[in-house]
Amino acid sequence: MNPTARRPRVVIIGSGFGGLFAARALAKADVDIRLIGRTTTHLFQPLLYQVATGILSPGEIAPATREVLAHQDNVQVELGDVTNIDVEAKTVTATTLDMPRTFSYDHLIVAAGANQSWFGNDQFADFAPGMKSIDDALELRGRIFGAFELAELAAADGRHDAAEALTTFVVVGAGPTGVEMAGQLAELSRRTLKHDFRHIDPRRAKIYLLDAAPAILGSFDESLQVKTRAAMEKLGVTVRLGAKVVDVDARGLEYQDADSETHRIEALTKVWAAGVAASPLARVLADQVGLEVDRAGRIPVNADLTLPGHDDIFVVGDMASLDGLPGVAQVAIQQSRYAASKIKASLGGKPVTEPFAYFDKGNMATISRFRAIAEIGKVKVTGFPAWGLWLGVHLVYIIGFKSRITTLLHWMVSFLGRGRAERNITEQQIFGRLAMHRVNDLPQRAARNLGWHRDDET
Amino acid sequence: MNPTARRPRVVIIGSGFGGLFAARALAKADVDIRLIGRTTTHLFQPLLYQVATGILSPGEIAPATREVLAHQDNVQVELGDVTNIDVEAKTVTATTLDMPRTFSYDHLIVAAGANQSWFGNDQFADFAPGMKSIDDALELRGRIFGAFELAELAAADGRHDAAEALTTFVVVGAGPTGVEMAGQLAELSRRTLKHDFRHIDPRRAKIYLLDAAPAILGSFDESLQVKTRAAMEKLGVTVRLGAKVVDVDARGLEYQDADSETHRIEALTKVWAAGVAASPLARVLADQVGLEVDRAGRIPVNADLTLPGHDDIFVVGDMASLDGLPGVAQVAIQQSRYAASKIKASLGGKPVTEPFAYFDKGNMATISRFRAIAEIGKVKVTGFPAWGLWLGVHLVYIIGFKSRITTLLHWMVSFLGRGRAERNITEQQIFGRLAMHRVNDLPQRAARNLGWHRDDET
Repeated sequence: MNPTARRPRVVIIGSGFGGLFAARALAKADVDIRLIGRTTTHLFQPLLYQVATGILSPGEIAPATREVLAHQDNVQVELGDVTNIDVEAKTVTATTLDMPRTFSYDHLIVAAGANQSWFGNDQFADFAPGMKSIDDALELRGRIFGAFELAELAAADGRHDAAEALTTFVVVGAGPTGVEMAGQLAELSRRTLKHDFRHIDPRRAKIYLLDAAPAILGSFDESLQVKTRAAMEKLGVTVRLGAKVVDVDARGLEYQDADSETHRIEALTKVWAAGVAASPLARVLADQVGLEVDRAGRIPVNADLTLPGHDDIFVVGDMASLDGLPGVAQVAIQQSRYAASKIKASLGGKPVTEPFAYFDKGNMATISRFRAIAEIGKVKVTGFPAWGLWLGVHLVYIIGFKSRITTLLHWMVSFLGRGRAERNITEQQIFGRLAMHRVNDLPQRAARNLGWHRDDET
Repeated sequence: MNPTARRPRVVIIGSGFGGLFAARALAKADVDIRLIGRTTTHLFQPLLYQVATGILSPGEIAPATREVLAHQDNVQVELGDVTNIDVEAKTVTATTLDMPRTFSYDHLIVAAGANQSWFGNDQFADFAPGMKSIDDALELRGRIFGAFELAELAAADGRHDAAEALTTFVVVGAGPTGVEMAGQLAELSRRTLKHDFRHIDPRRAKIYLLDAAPAILGSFDESLQVKTRAAMEKLGVTVRLGAKVVDVDARGLEYQDADSETHRIEALTKVWAAGVAASPLARVLADQVGLEVDRAGRIPVNADLTLPGHDDIFVVGDMASLDGLPGVAQVAIQQSRYAASKIKASLGGKPVTEPFAYFDKGNMATISRFRAIAEIGKVKVTGFPAWGLWLGVHLVYIIGFKSRITTLLHWMVSFLGRGRAERNITEQQIFGRLAMHRVNDLPQRAARNLGWHRDDET
């Protein structure tokens, strides 16, 4: 290494699995890394549903990125929202509080992930929030626990129709996130809250799990799909497949079944876990190199994860389209490590000539406490052994020793016991959003019956 | 007990120490209890500063009131903001989402506590939030961690004046809350964050602790005041006593010293821990019985804690003025238990003829990790032994086994290690408040230098 030469600049976009593991894989490299994140934390997205349902606190699934990388001297963490990449000028523009800043790079790793997609119906988002950020999870937490509070009030007032709509929950999308969310809503209503109210019986809450596809957990083996569906129904979750959501409003949701018949569910609380779209940065890159993004907004990459025509740019994780790989943490982690190894090779290390190869460690989803399903190669595991696997894998992957112990303990509280340690609703949510927004979400008749006025009536 | 007779109705206002312990003390009584709370949780207020500084999560200091009382069948928890008490009609009116509801009582325990007071300068509140609710603590958490993020940006841009104002913190009020807050800000900047930034050195953050009184911890023995002040200064906290805050604005704060000279501190983040005012319900009661509230808004009560002329109404905790008792958790707890024993006596139990007597278990405050001060009768304890005492007492009093274990572990992480598990800032805070509000909090010149525009300039 020549100490007088400028160190190569590596810019990493994103503080998720791809971005963080890329930075760590370059820990010993003689480079100058800027990791640009939209938030101050590294989010362990697969556990968001546990924040939304009151099991874990935000800090337990989202350690501060700066803290995780505090002792890695070759990296600077930058807070900013990347708005542009110029592949010719080799610059990235990030905006923080309306202040644009430009970063030059010698190597770029784009790991900006994916956002929730309402399939062109962004107007659904207000009524059926997604599950992609801590903000989403806290919003849903307030809505879920708030719904039971409102239902208790309605029932005390004898308005049982309103109470029923308030304790009806619809989860749209039956992938792992949707299944886990529906399972936890069942646990929450059947176990956690069962003694907490006097006028409603939370165990009678209705939980729907909807998907347009004909099966739940589409990416898993059929035997596991069948078992999961049966387990969901045993928990009290109503599963509707081949159900395409055509409208979502404040009071409920409409879907078309396989026979094109339209059905309506009156439900105040809807959760959207149906689709994702890659970060718009994929299109920014595609436009500059004359490529098209795919239906999920992902950009096709070379076998070595580089952007076609630009071997200084790697695109990894949910933004990249390659060999039909799924948008899961393991793909992002392995791809970012591969990209880092290519960058290290370019600095004079051992050349990397093999293309990226994904090693599938398996796939898993929890159903409820003590029950999960897992698929490792041809091996299928269900029930408690699968749940044990899930627990171990998640404990290992949660970044940092510190959150692991408290997380394990919160899990003991929730799984062995019945409690939810993190049920807090802020006053802002109670007196702000619940008052101003959720009352308008009430079925009109119910709202009137309750003596509550909706903005749209006089 | 006559099963055909209507059970006496006990209404309890407040879910803090007074309200919750009153409800629990009546667990075996043949009464019908309504506990009316403004929030859904029982807040362990003395630990709010730990939520504000990223040590604990909201759930750890604020379990759901319904969960704490789930198995006590004679109590209904009601979410509502009490707006009126009619001592003649014996009714309480509570409003939830603009819907007023009226509760009749045979016995009433008023334990609505106290709110922050800016001593008539409510316009200070936006710039110097108080420390009385989870919302306050989360707001301060966002401001504190956000300030370091903004300072890093400013320093990277060479604007060291802005970075300095951004890393200056002023705590107003040197009672236990102010001392604990200032101590934790010192720990946070000197230990937790020391490796996290590249352009600022968080250890150089300035922390001021101001009080109009001539001493810190006014309610403690002078020897402890002197030791605490020395310990604070050793931690890097600048203590200014006899300092009366006369103005607070977005960019800083002005105070008058003992010689009536005015000084200004440029500081983006201010915390108000200076004063409390009893719930306005104290005045509602006072007006009806022809009494005056005291300077802190508290209502004088009889020696048995009843409202003069109304032996069916007990006023306990921070709202009651009796024998100069301080507004601490122990007073509220002991008073609520006494009130409950009087109610039980009226149901045919052993008559309670003695007036309320406070048993002072002592007084304590933490200074930093491993250091505290405590005063038990004539015994004074300082340093590590006092901290051990503090730890034990707080673990015992945190309601419910469940939060105790995770709390202890979060403490291990923060005190033995250096981390803060709960540093999360929501995107709403980053892109909402920080962008819209905090930029306007920047010194005008600094904002302009940073390329940020303030709303009040063109």
